[in-house]
Amino acid sequence: MQPLRETPTTTLERIPERGSYDRKLAYAILDEALVCHVGFVYQGRSVVLPMAYARWRDSIFLHGAVAGRFATALAEGGEICVTVTLLDGVVLARSVFSHSMNYRSVMAFGRPLLVEDAGRKRQALMALTEHLAPGRWADARQPTEKELDATGLIELPLDEASVKTRSGPPGDLAKDRDLEVWAGVVPLSLASGAPVPDPQMPDGTPLPDYLVQRTP
Amino acid sequence: MQPLRETPTTTLERIPERGSYDRKLAYAILDEALVCHVGFVYQGRSVVLPMAYARWRDSIFLHGAVAGRFATALAEGGEICVTVTLLDGVVLARSVFSHSMNYRSVMAFGRPLLVEDAGRKRQALMALTEHLAPGRWADARQPTEKELDATGLIELPLDEASVKTRSGPPGDLAKDRDLEVWAGVVPLSLASGAPVPDPQMPDGTPLPDYLVQRTP
Repeated sequence: MQPLRETPTTTLERIPERGSYDRKLAYAILDEALVCHVGFVYQGRSVVLPMAYARWRDSIFLHGAVAGRFATALAEGGEICVTVTLLDGVVLARSVFSHSMNYRSVMAFGRPLLVEDAGRKRQALMALTEHLAPGRWADARQPTEKELDATGLIELPLDEASVKTRSGPPGDLAKDRDLEVWAGVVPLSLASGAPVPDPQMPDGTPLPDYLVQRTP
Repeated sequence: MQPLRETPTTTLERIPERGSYDRKLAYAILDEALVCHVGFVYQGRSVVLPMAYARWRDSIFLHGAVAGRFATALAEGGEICVTVTLLDGVVLARSVFSHSMNYRSVMAFGRPLLVEDAGRKRQALMALTEHLAPGRWADARQPTEKELDATGLIELPLDEASVKTRSGPPGDLAKDRDLEVWAGVVPLSLASGAPVPDPQMPDGTPLPDYLVQRTP
């Protein structure tokens, strides 16, 4: 696998030992998270939108209306920045100064492409649906031609990007290590709760296997 | 409470009924989430960084090194966009086309201020520490003058901002409601795991009460 590309924008400035250009690590983070934050320039200002996404092969697909400010920015040929962050823990150090968070994040830059080919649109929509719930695509009603037409899909090839992570215990100063303060990490993770059926669904509709596995 | 300010950038373009300028709702979202995504313009491109933050009164404080690309953008008088997103669920509709996510998000814009006053810096650091773990500030070693000096803190007054949320069951088309496909919501929430003590801490250091309450 080709590493991600380092450029003046993706050079890791701060604490470079927490950074990486490893494509495999980036893909693992992108496949685990569910939401990305997309930055674009609109009238000279940066605008950051939360969006659903999925990785497929060496691209990110964004699911979002191609309308309004975002569409204007794209139509003007603007680049975007897609950032994905997984929170792994609150790092409680003995000193206030050394508090931190454990996380894994990917930041990717580039000029997005509007997906227009119907076959590729279907592929992107499948990736997005499977990303939400693996197994769902084959179960749900497939999109019609009209629905595919109405779906805005944007592709960002993964090229200029970087990974940043922090893990492990707090990094207190040596002089603070004997303080009698509890220190460590409170792990964090995004947890699924018991599925809530649509009240309009007939009683007794069985929960599909691919959702049973997610039930706590 | 004054509502948040609607401007050409914060006007809700898409599905406006999911949007609001309610300050109380915005503050509840900001107080619950732990990470924000900060967008700024650097050499004509939007850059989006994940950062720790806390709300205090009518401002967001960002904890982050004031160095590198972000510092350059701020020094040039640039505005920032701070977006905070809580994922509440995966919305599984009968049709692929109607899949969605439940979420609550805040997007705030403005010209950030560098916090320089020592008293305000201490207040901001207290807000950030208490946001990570309420009760922690009084327990951990307080920052020295030198540490306060070395801490980069940025303030964004909450003024031009908007809230967007989606909740509830899927919105399938009427014609799809009789399809025999399970439909509903898989709830999502950020869960805390059992605290992991720093291996360098002496055995028997008690877990403080404010962390016991977070233990699953």
